[in-house]
Amino acid sequence: MHLRALTLAAVLAAAGVPAAEPPPLAIVHGTVLDGLGGPPVPDGVVLIRNGRIEAVGPAASVSMPKDAQVIDARGKTVLPGLADLHVHLQGGWNGIDNDLLGYQRYLDALLYAGVTTVFDTGNYAPFILQLRQEVAAGRVRGPRIYCVGAMVDSADAAWPDLAYAVSSRALLPEMVRRGKHGRVDMLKGYVNLSDRMLRRLVDEARRENLRVVVDQWDRNGSPDLVATGVAGFAHMPTRRMSDDDVRAMKQANVFAVTTLTVRESFARTRLADPALHAEPLVTDTTPPWFLAELRTEAARPLASTEAAARDAAAGALEEAGRNAVKLLAAGVLVAAGTDAPYPGVFQGEGLHRELELLVAAGLSPLQAIRLATHDAARLLQADGEWGSLRPGLKADVLVVAGRPHERISDTRRIELVVKEGRVLDRASLRFDARRDGGHRAVPGLFNP
Amino acid sequence: MHLRALTLAAVLAAAGVPAAEPPPLAIVHGTVLDGLGGPPVPDGVVLIRNGRIEAVGPAASVSMPKDAQVIDARGKTVLPGLADLHVHLQGGWNGIDNDLLGYQRYLDALLYAGVTTVFDTGNYAPFILQLRQEVAAGRVRGPRIYCVGAMVDSADAAWPDLAYAVSSRALLPEMVRRGKHGRVDMLKGYVNLSDRMLRRLVDEARRENLRVVVDQWDRNGSPDLVATGVAGFAHMPTRRMSDDDVRAMKQANVFAVTTLTVRESFARTRLADPALHAEPLVTDTTPPWFLAELRTEAARPLASTEAAARDAAAGALEEAGRNAVKLLAAGVLVAAGTDAPYPGVFQGEGLHRELELLVAAGLSPLQAIRLATHDAARLLQADGEWGSLRPGLKADVLVVAGRPHERISDTRRIELVVKEGRVLDRASLRFDARRDGGHRAVPGLFNP
Amino acid sequence: MHLRALTLAAVLAAAGVPAAEPPPLAIVHGTVLDGLGGPPVPDGVVLIRNGRIEAVGPAASVSMPKDAQVIDARGKTVLPGLADLHVHLQGGWNGIDNDLLGYQRYLDALLYAGVTTVFDTGNYAPFILQLRQEVAAGRVRGPRIYCVGAMVDSADAAWPDLAYAVSSRALLPEMVRRGKHGRVDMLKGYVNLSDRMLRRLVDEARRENLRVVVDQWDRNGSPDLVATGVAGFAHMPTRRMSDDDVRAMKQANVFAVTTLTVRESFARTRLADPALHAEPLVTDTTPPWFLAELRTEAARPLASTEAAARDAAAGALEEAGRNAVKLLAAGVLVAAGTDAPYPGVFQGEGLHRELELLVAAGLSPLQAIRLATHDAARLLQADGEWGSLRPGLKADVLVVAGRPHERISDTRRIELVVKEGRVLDRASLRFDARRDGGHRAVPGLFNP
Amino acid sequence: MHLRALTLAAVLAAAGVPAAEPPPLAIVHGTVLDGLGGPPVPDGVVLIRNGRIEAVGPAASVSMPKDAQVIDARGKTVLPGLADLHVHLQGGWNGIDNDLLGYQRYLDALLYAGVTTVFDTGNYAPFILQLRQEVAAGRVRGPRIYCVGAMVDSADAAWPDLAYAVSSRALLPEMVRRGKHGRVDMLKGYVNLSDRMLRRLVDEARRENLRVVVDQWDRNGSPDLVATGVAGFAHMPTRRMSDDDVRAMKQANVFAVTTLTVRESFARTRLADPALHAEPLVTDTTPPWFLAELRTEAARPLASTEAAARDAAAGALEEAGRNAVKLLAAGVLVAAGTDAPYPGVFQGEGLHRELELLVAAGLSPLQAIRLATHDAARLLQADGEWGSLRPGLKADVLVVAGRPHERISDTRRIELVVKEGRVLDRASLRFDARRDGGHRAVPGLFNP
Repeated sequence: MHLRALTLAAVLAAAGVPAAEPPPLAIVHGTVLDGLGGPPVPDGVVLIRNGRIEAVGPAASVSMPKDAQVIDARGKTVLPGLADLHVHLQGGWNGIDNDLLGYQRYLDALLYAGVTTVFDTGNYAPFILQLRQEVAAGRVRGPRIYCVGAMVDSADAAWPDLAYAVSSRALLPEMVRRGKHGRVDMLKGYVNLSDRMLRRLVDEARRENLRVVVDQWDRNGSPDLVATGVAGFAHMPTRRMSDDDVRAMKQANVFAVTTLTVRESFARTRLADPALHAEPLVTDTTPPWFLAELRTEAARPLASTEAAARDAAAGALEEAGRNAVKLLAAGVLVAAGTDAPYPGVFQGEGLHRELELLVAAGLSPLQAIRLATHDAARLLQADGEWGSLRPGLKADVLVVAGRPHERISDTRRIELVVKEGRVLDRASLRFDARRDGGHRAVPGLFNP
Repeated sequence: MHLRALTLAAVLAAAGVPAAEPPPLAIVHGTVLDGLGGPPVPDGVVLIRNGRIEAVGPAASVSMPKDAQVIDARGKTVLPGLADLHVHLQGGWNGIDNDLLGYQRYLDALLYAGVTTVFDTGNYAPFILQLRQEVAAGRVRGPRIYCVGAMVDSADAAWPDLAYAVSSRALLPEMVRRGKHGRVDMLKGYVNLSDRMLRRLVDEARRENLRVVVDQWDRNGSPDLVATGVAGFAHMPTRRMSDDDVRAMKQANVFAVTTLTVRESFARTRLADPALHAEPLVTDTTPPWFLAELRTEAARPLASTEAAARDAAAGALEEAGRNAVKLLAAGVLVAAGTDAPYPGVFQGEGLHRELELLVAAGLSPLQAIRLATHDAARLLQADGEWGSLRPGLKADVLVVAGRPHERISDTRRIELVVKEGRVLDRASLRFDARRDGGHRAVPGLFNP
Repeated sequence: MHLRALTLAAVLAAAGVPAAEPPPLAIVHGTVLDGLGGPPVPDGVVLIRNGRIEAVGPAASVSMPKDAQVIDARGKTVLPGLADLHVHLQGGWNGIDNDLLGYQRYLDALLYAGVTTVFDTGNYAPFILQLRQEVAAGRVRGPRIYCVGAMVDSADAAWPDLAYAVSSRALLPEMVRRGKHGRVDMLKGYVNLSDRMLRRLVDEARRENLRVVVDQWDRNGSPDLVATGVAGFAHMPTRRMSDDDVRAMKQANVFAVTTLTVRESFARTRLADPALHAEPLVTDTTPPWFLAELRTEAARPLASTEAAARDAAAGALEEAGRNAVKLLAAGVLVAAGTDAPYPGVFQGEGLHRELELLVAAGLSPLQAIRLATHDAARLLQADGEWGSLRPGLKADVLVVAGRPHERISDTRRIELVVKEGRVLDRASLRFDARRDGGHRAVPGLFNP
Repeated sequence: MHLRALTLAAVLAAAGVPAAEPPPLAIVHGTVLDGLGGPPVPDGVVLIRNGRIEAVGPAASVSMPKDAQVIDARGKTVLPGLADLHVHLQGGWNGIDNDLLGYQRYLDALLYAGVTTVFDTGNYAPFILQLRQEVAAGRVRGPRIYCVGAMVDSADAAWPDLAYAVSSRALLPEMVRRGKHGRVDMLKGYVNLSDRMLRRLVDEARRENLRVVVDQWDRNGSPDLVATGVAGFAHMPTRRMSDDDVRAMKQANVFAVTTLTVRESFARTRLADPALHAEPLVTDTTPPWFLAELRTEAARPLASTEAAARDAAAGALEEAGRNAVKLLAAGVLVAAGTDAPYPGVFQGEGLHRELELLVAAGLSPLQAIRLATHDAARLLQADGEWGSLRPGLKADVLVVAGRPHERISDTRRIELVVKEGRVLDRASLRFDARRDGGHRAVPGLFNP
């Protein structure tokens, strides 16, 4: 059965809409990447039943059920659904403004780009908790959501609308209680927390089996922060890391999320790239007015302080790339993430850019893919649930044209997205002014 | 032209959806209540053009345009759209849980009940600001929204998700800045702020032409709070107010919002009333599962501390009723509000209940209606824009069966809702499981 | 034996220097005021042994030990040592500056004026705790000291050097712990604490058997504050108190300390009174340079805001006097205190001025004296230890020329001060530049 | 003239008591160490007039005034008065308890040990400011005092009685204002401040020409802290410093104070050393009851956590010694300090121990002496005023028996202390129970 035919004629269901269990689904003849970094399997089969992977391997090794719907992926590559471990689902596209009502647009953009899991690392707690709940219940269409709820910051919270302001360590048990109340997946300590507060937060959280991820801007990667007991850094460090610094992270079992794209955003190189506006993952999912605003922003003359910040960001991007290579070489757990949305960092498309930047920094394509699949799941302690193509795992599967293990940008050439065993109707995920609510963002607060 | 025919055959537009200006609309032969408390005008005409009231008065005094669409309100009463000056549009129906995604349901319930304006007195700032923006732009269907953004509370914010936590007075300028940034309609100081912080907040806000409304629970109405310079109380005081206390409010020009319904909710009398489940304004707009949950809650045996709180609330309700009468007699500005949602306090229906409670407390029906129309607009300094039936004002108009100026409960018998000149399709505002997103709330945080 | 002869020839001991127990001491032939407000006893005897009162009453009723040293108080009045229940022993004389090193000077001034007990209502905790300890141990000469340690205020402490800054209620247990650690006699909640914080502080303190006294400036006496559960007000309210307000204090068993003198200081009337500079209790105990500075301050032209504050203070003084009368009439516990030091409010002399102001406000002299003796002890829950002339109590006794129960200013005419049974050498308590350290204050911090 | 004869027969003046200017004073025939680290000058002359050094050099190079009082220092060594750049003049000897009233005892102990300058790095602001003032005015006998006032810490101040608790960065200008108000010599940021708060504090302080010294315990020396812009560390880092770390300090021109003695205190080795109780600088200046308490403390069995802390401290001491050598080698400004008082770290004696520990760590005796003289003055930006033996500088001069440039412990063999040109009567600086106030400390607060 021809793929195009399938999606047109027999789309099984829109993601998340509960329905009778579909028949088994077999994706055949494609090159299979398992997400674990194993060697590509030519002429592989991925067999899916009841939302989970039933079998995977060379054609010869998998016995095909009679009732299977078959998708022919000849000449294509089959890989796990991607995960972006650093997003903020509060919309706005510029990183500060808030578009809560427009959530369907950016959830669709993620699915459209093959991102089947995200980790929201700071949001309005009730909003992200409800989004997570509604997606899980199948009432909202979107990728699987993990979240930290609101961040924990000092009384001078940098993001007043996305953080709890903590004036005293005596309030930390209350912060952990809030996290438990919302059953968040991790807590996030933000930039204004002192190291001693972080350490206490880690201790309090540990009692409740919660881990703490941290973002402290230019301090990320600091051995001082590693010593607080945090589980990881929400960004790849952008400072020069010595071998000792890398070792400290490894010894303390501290992870890092890559987010090279947000550095590129600050460096404004992506913004200025006309190719961005020709990229289907962008143009198919983004309202025209936004792209126009982005062009305006890209063309805007910068003040000298802005230009200096831009130049510094270019350096930070390079440093982050080098650190990613070093950390991986040292065996530190690293997963891919973008920090979308920021100018030029799109939900969905951003992750593909992230993979490209990682490869540009020195990773092999297979390594980069692993960071966005199996290692992402490991970071979330969910690698027994999703993240790779192994029997028993949830069937988040992509079919892409080309050979992304050789040319990373081929991850963009998505032809099929399967989330938990269901083939998504990608056409319905496209931005369509007739269906879109047309919501505009409202200005957000940021006090660095 | 028959009303039913009109709405079936020629519904002009869904509220808020921009379209070509409709022809003039004339509501004729009804008894007209102007919202200002003036005597009912029998056989009156309300003529609407371009979203505003063009003329109002006895039939003889208004010349009818040829192209007017005419609505015959014979035997009915015509009055201004109602305003609820104390709501929280974060959903959940029980007062604590959050259902941000389900906003359309409760906005519809408000419109369905003829509530064309609300004052949200505490919410997640980006959410309520965007709701306000989207309704104003016609992209979301709902009543006109005023809001305070997030409340300002101490470092121990009682509603951590609905307030900014302020640990020092040195941060008050920042709080005002946030309010200005969001162009909120007022600031709200909450229960943990000291009187001195409130005074400073008032001073800071004044510099930016912002007023401060306050809720300090059992302290509302206190002369000490009046002395801080606040503009008003978000609740009717529930403590015994002496003549001196009343005078202090009058002299300082301090307003109060009634919110008797929330006291009734705490007293659990409404919850236990089977009539609630027969009330169309409730049953037409509420999902069955919620009503089932409400019945379960109503039947739940109470712990002794809960029973004591319930009994105290019954006393508070009486006290608040007495205070409403006293304040009005003294010339204090009072407007109607409910604090919806709370158990048994519904968005929309709650306001009708509020009017009934006010009349039960001793107000005349015309007084009660004025509190929910013209005086509500005065409180928001918008009485030149809406709130009464006067030429030039925005045409928010209700047609109800019966004579609410004689029997206040007739406000419930709504037949027509006009918002800014557009007749709403009430049928489309009803809860319909096929259209409803089915969203469920997530647990909220409250730390008294 | 003649009094003068006694003090010159046979001074028993400097206060606080431990020594062999002195022989019994009998003060005879004076008019005895018991401090309880009972009728003056002519030709009374006060018999003292081992630091305590052994007997008191009409001459006929007391059997005189043979070895008694006898003081003839014929034509004089015998009364309990006085107590000032609102002082700050941090020196400076102007109310803001700090002269910690000069403590002996102001402790001496207190004893010289017959003040044998003080309640320090806010100080640097380690300093006042050590002063209290050293006086109790007899290593420093001074009146018996009770104290609150440092005050508890918000993060914006008005007196940064005399208060703990509390940013969250989660820190209140720590505040109580600090008080217990120092074994303070009461906690003091200061002006920036919200009513809810105060209530929590009261609750926390109660668990440790500590009471909370409060000063909230113009809010003192407010029923709202009474409702927090505080034990009392550190100042007489200066606002108009209604009968209800007074009743609220009585019902809640809330005390007040008078501090009319500090109002007089703010009103600048005392400052401007040349008689101040002729008053021996002042001139005998105060360095000349300070009196010169005071004259300069008195002569300084005031800015218009200062003049307005001065005029307001004159009104506050009157209001406070009226409130003192009302509270006493209602049976509220009131004790005398000054808030020394402030300009024109001297340690020691200030209390005599306080008594005069109380009589001017309408109290009888006996009432005023009771406020500075027995009622002061009651307030500190120490009336079983000191404060009146009753057998078994500590022998703090004054002999004054004249009849203070008829003319209150006669309390100033002190001839003999006995503290815990020891006659003080008043000559050695006078300011003497040769013995004085000559210390000057350093500027203090006050952020209203 | 024989030294003993001089001090017995003609003591010029007690330190700090203003008097007529003494005649010129010539210290002759001693080996002169200039404090700058220059080569010892045999048979040198130090000529003092009007409180300052008039000339210094080989005998031949200095012309002797006829009226000079001559001190023969043959066989002895002449060096600048010593400075301890980390003390807390709040007494208590155990590091936590407070003995404010006993200040004269510890000021005397400092002078007795030849410490003529101290830097108090955290105290109750009014107390230390007044001590500084009174010593400067000659009304209190003691070493020259520099101070930071109270430390700046977070809302969870580790030393609640010695720090201002800062809950928000919005309060930092107020903190700097407090420092300016007291004309402190530097500000001190303490352990709970976040790096971002420190950076802001540094920026605010810079506007007022104030520097910020920091203590962040195990984080001292961290490049992250160096990056905040602090002027220096109040302690020698105890963590392993890499070459990069050292370079960061050098490049940022960040100083460190040594405080090896406090590590030795925590390691409890000094406490256990019987020699401590035979050391005249200790026994001459310390009350017997304290030494008894110290013996008791030394003999006390330790809990296992205490033993672990003790062992860690031994490692920290070694690390700190290594760091001192490294920092000096790299050209970082280092000055000597002790953190007295702590168990076994005495005011005065502690500094001699510090010098011994520095030499044990690898410094030459001349280097160590320079850290306590000229480099201490440089750190305080006062090397043009005191700290070395150069014409024009204040004459703080010691004469010691022996040759401390060869055997560092000879600094203990003090025979003469000159402060600002006045020879101190060391006999009067000894502890004398008859003159001592006998004050005992009160328990202090420490919340790590």
